Amino acid sequence: MTEVSQLKVGVLGGTGPQGRGLALRWARAGISVVLGSRSAERAEAAAAELRDLAGVDAITGLDNAACAAAADVVLVAVPWDGHRDLLESLRLELAQKIVIDCVNPLGFDKQGPFALPVEEGSAAQQAALVLAESRVTAAFHHVSAVLLADLGVSEVDIDVLVLGDDREATDTVRALADAIPGMRGVYGGRLRNAHQVEAFTANLIAINKRYKAHAGIRVTDL
Amino acid sequence: MTEVSQLKVGVLGGTGPQGRGLALRWARAGISVVLGSRSAERAEAAAAELRDLAGVDAITGLDNAACAAAADVVLVAVPWDGHRDLLESLRLELAQKIVIDCVNPLGFDKQGPFALPVEEGSAAQQAALVLAESRVTAAFHHVSAVLLADLGVSEVDIDVLVLGDDREATDTVRALADAIPGMRGVYGGRLRNAHQVEAFTANLIAINKRYKAHAGIRVTDL
Repeated sequence: MTEVSQLKVGVLGGTGPQGRGLALRWARAGISVVLGSRSAERAEAAAAELRDLAGVDAITGLDNAACAAAADVVLVAVPWDGHRDLLESLRLELAQKIVIDCVNPLGFDKQGPFALPVEEGSAAQQAALVLAESRVTAAFHHVSAVLLADLGVSEVDIDVLVLGDDREATDTVRALADAIPGMRGVYGGRLRNAHQVEAFTANLIAINKRYKAHAGIRVTDL
Repeated sequence: MTEVSQLKVGVLGGTGPQGRGLALRWARAGISVVLGSRSAERAEAAAAELRDLAGVDAITGLDNAACAAAADVVLVAVPWDGHRDLLESLRLELAQKIVIDCVNPLGFDKQGPFALPVEEGSAAQQAALVLAESRVTAAFHHVSAVLLADLGVSEVDIDVLVLGDDREATDTVRALADAIPGMRGVYGGRLRNAHQVEAFTANLIAINKRYKAHAGIRVTDL
């Protein structure tokens, strides 16, 4: 396994809250990050803000295709709506690379959040079908963007479940979770069991509402 | 809310590992428990064993219908196969009562565990549709039967997610989790978000295999 400090991590959807938050934490941990967005200008503007916040230089911004091409490992942190189209457009750039899907297909109505049905089973399985030449994993679904953005939170108290069928890939992604203080990467099963991990974000949102919290999970007995 | 120590808790499937384990722990906590089984004799035999183990008298065994009729709150801890038929046969006995469904509809193949599709969305939603006159909740999906049975484990290190649309019912079920040392009952969302909590048991089984553990979860920031 490559030392994660040597990896360049791309973040598709790098101007959204989840992508920005993880980019910030990885950069603080000494990992090079490249933000991707539809607009290279917006990506570079977000990167400039994060460089200031993180106090490090190694965050840049590019359009999504250039981001995917430049990175060793790529986090997909885009809205569910548009997920498939974006991945289809980046098949070549993402070939052979480790892809981390953190997308939660959720809907909201008057009763709160709920899991959307996904034809392929889950966002991660959709990614694996679209990106047949990539090493697709699923992780970072439950991390609170609010806590990530708040550098007053020095340790992010959460286990990151890492799912996938490629042991070396899930080990690398676990190490990327371990690189962020407080986080722990835990193997969470095969990709076919990703749906419930994505959907569980609806439960965490309901918990947050009831308890006024930024809830995550820890796995016990490990 | 009734004090849980005054409740009589029925356990359908009370001779199975999950039902026995929870019955044992509730009895040790001073709660009256009645085990249900297809055979009253087998239920009473299991109850006699648990009385010895727990060192308390307040565990009895009856057939499922008599168990459901005798109890104030009823845990459904039967195999998924047969879940619907059993509940249909107990509609009258379970009317108006708080029902706790802990059933995980899972399949297993060479690649390990996976979530089975459920027409109604989840075992809990199936229970709610069948038991239209009952107050159906979902909880206790992730508790390790091995840890419950081992009284050397004095504290069961797990949060129990309690789902349901009836606030008083979920509060009572949370209190039944809180009654077991180490456990904490946490509201986990509406019943329509039960599927992923049930299915997540497949991930915990995969985690147990990888890490040689009896994994559960804790919710952080509460």
